[in-house]
Amino acid sequence: MPRTRDAGVGLDRPERCHDCAIMQAKGMSGFDVALHHIESEILAGNYVAGTQLPPERELAARLSVGRGAVREAIRVLQAQGIVVSGTGPGNGTRIRATPGDALGRMLRLQLALDITSVEDLTETRIVVEKAATVAAAHHGPNAALRRAGLLVERMERRTDPDSFNELDTSFHIAVIEASGNHMLSMLSAAIRHTLSAPIRRAEERLDDWDEVRSGLVAEHRAILEAVRVHDANLASELVEKHIRHSYEVLLPDGAAPAESGTHG
Amino acid sequence: MPRTRDAGVGLDRPERCHDCAIMQAKGMSGFDVALHHIESEILAGNYVAGTQLPPERELAARLSVGRGAVREAIRVLQAQGIVVSGTGPGNGTRIRATPGDALGRMLRLQLALDITSVEDLTETRIVVEKAATVAAAHHGPNAALRRAGLLVERMERRTDPDSFNELDTSFHIAVIEASGNHMLSMLSAAIRHTLSAPIRRAEERLDDWDEVRSGLVAEHRAILEAVRVHDANLASELVEKHIRHSYEVLLPDGAAPAESGTHG
Repeated sequence: MPRTRDAGVGLDRPERCHDCAIMQAKGMSGFDVALHHIESEILAGNYVAGTQLPPERELAARLSVGRGAVREAIRVLQAQGIVVSGTGPGNGTRIRATPGDALGRMLRLQLALDITSVEDLTETRIVVEKAATVAAAHHGPNAALRRAGLLVERMERRTDPDSFNELDTSFHIAVIEASGNHMLSMLSAAIRHTLSAPIRRAEERLDDWDEVRSGLVAEHRAILEAVRVHDANLASELVEKHIRHSYEVLLPDGAAPAESGTHG
Repeated sequence: MPRTRDAGVGLDRPERCHDCAIMQAKGMSGFDVALHHIESEILAGNYVAGTQLPPERELAARLSVGRGAVREAIRVLQAQGIVVSGTGPGNGTRIRATPGDALGRMLRLQLALDITSVEDLTETRIVVEKAATVAAAHHGPNAALRRAGLLVERMERRTDPDSFNELDTSFHIAVIEASGNHMLSMLSAAIRHTLSAPIRRAEERLDDWDEVRSGLVAEHRAILEAVRVHDANLASELVEKHIRHSYEVLLPDGAAPAESGTHG
């Protein structure tokens, strides 16, 4: 690794990592040291949203690890939605404020690997989305609810399964965002995105798609109306019915969860 | 990059990546290509739990990317709990069957970065843990419930906050595992682990720790008993009360969520 003036930090530099030698003596790899270091800075509150990370070269020298190890650690944090890297000069790696779809990507792989199932995800979606809808109904009208209203209007006009499915996902996410609970929003959005592909495939197989579609639009309208008039109980009941009904219609081949109870 | 016989794959080898040239032409980096390739193989069902990945060198050649790019992609999948890498000869990287604490690590960083809050996590924990407890109460007695019983016995004898907190976390995870819903289990475990540090810090500050501890043991016993006699409603009610009560006692400085409603 070529050493430059920037990279040649000494013990007099306060940023030098004091635990790194101990970590390496314990057999931790350069990657482990780099990841541990950045995570520690975040957990200690030294790195906050918007903080710019030192350049790879400088961080590598500071931690006495290779640049490849620093890059691997940054890739991991990128995939977790914890940092974001720009391209071009002056656009380094920053701590980011929004985690994006990191959880959704993980869930899609877990679904493919049978670590989780459509049934487990659906039951989890029901409890999480019901709670978020109750919270949304307790709030006053807000931008997210207005967006949900516009989305349901657009669903009436879109007839092809692909566009409809996209609007459907966005509608649910908008209602959930109105809850103001970011953890519930992130989770419901990730689950809804993960289930989006199996739902779309099922919709494409339906003979009576137009009829099903009208029913789905009506169900979305009713949920939104209950949230708007702050009827939390009705909204919660309609959301559960809607999700169970969708899965019955869309996944009639045994993948649909049971009518009642938390497991099928 | 040195080319070996293994790495020198040609077009006659069926494993060669056909999309890679297109992806690179579109400006995707070697890392993007490598991650996309492995993810696609998982989503297509070609890689299942236990599948051994080709050696880094071979994969790099097959995808026409650098070895560093392949290593970065594997690190990302490791951190997501999707692959596991052994050390030593013959211990390559395998697709894994259990995701471990990948979600928990992500949530801890998000909590530190204020992407989520103790309050949002607690409200999410309540809805998820209630649903898992209801499902556990519907099941017959199983190994996870027996483990929960042993853990509550041990909680009675452990007085220091650290050991108590560890047993407390394990108790909740055991009850949730009895639900049989892997998604709910994974999620509750991740949230409980994420909140474990703030809970432990609060416990260490308490003057009346012994009294609080006795109350907590009694609450755990009551939840377990309700699950054992299949009283799903009582179990669900006790879980919500227990979690809200813990936060009132442990986090009286305003971090505790409201007594009712899904948001504070």
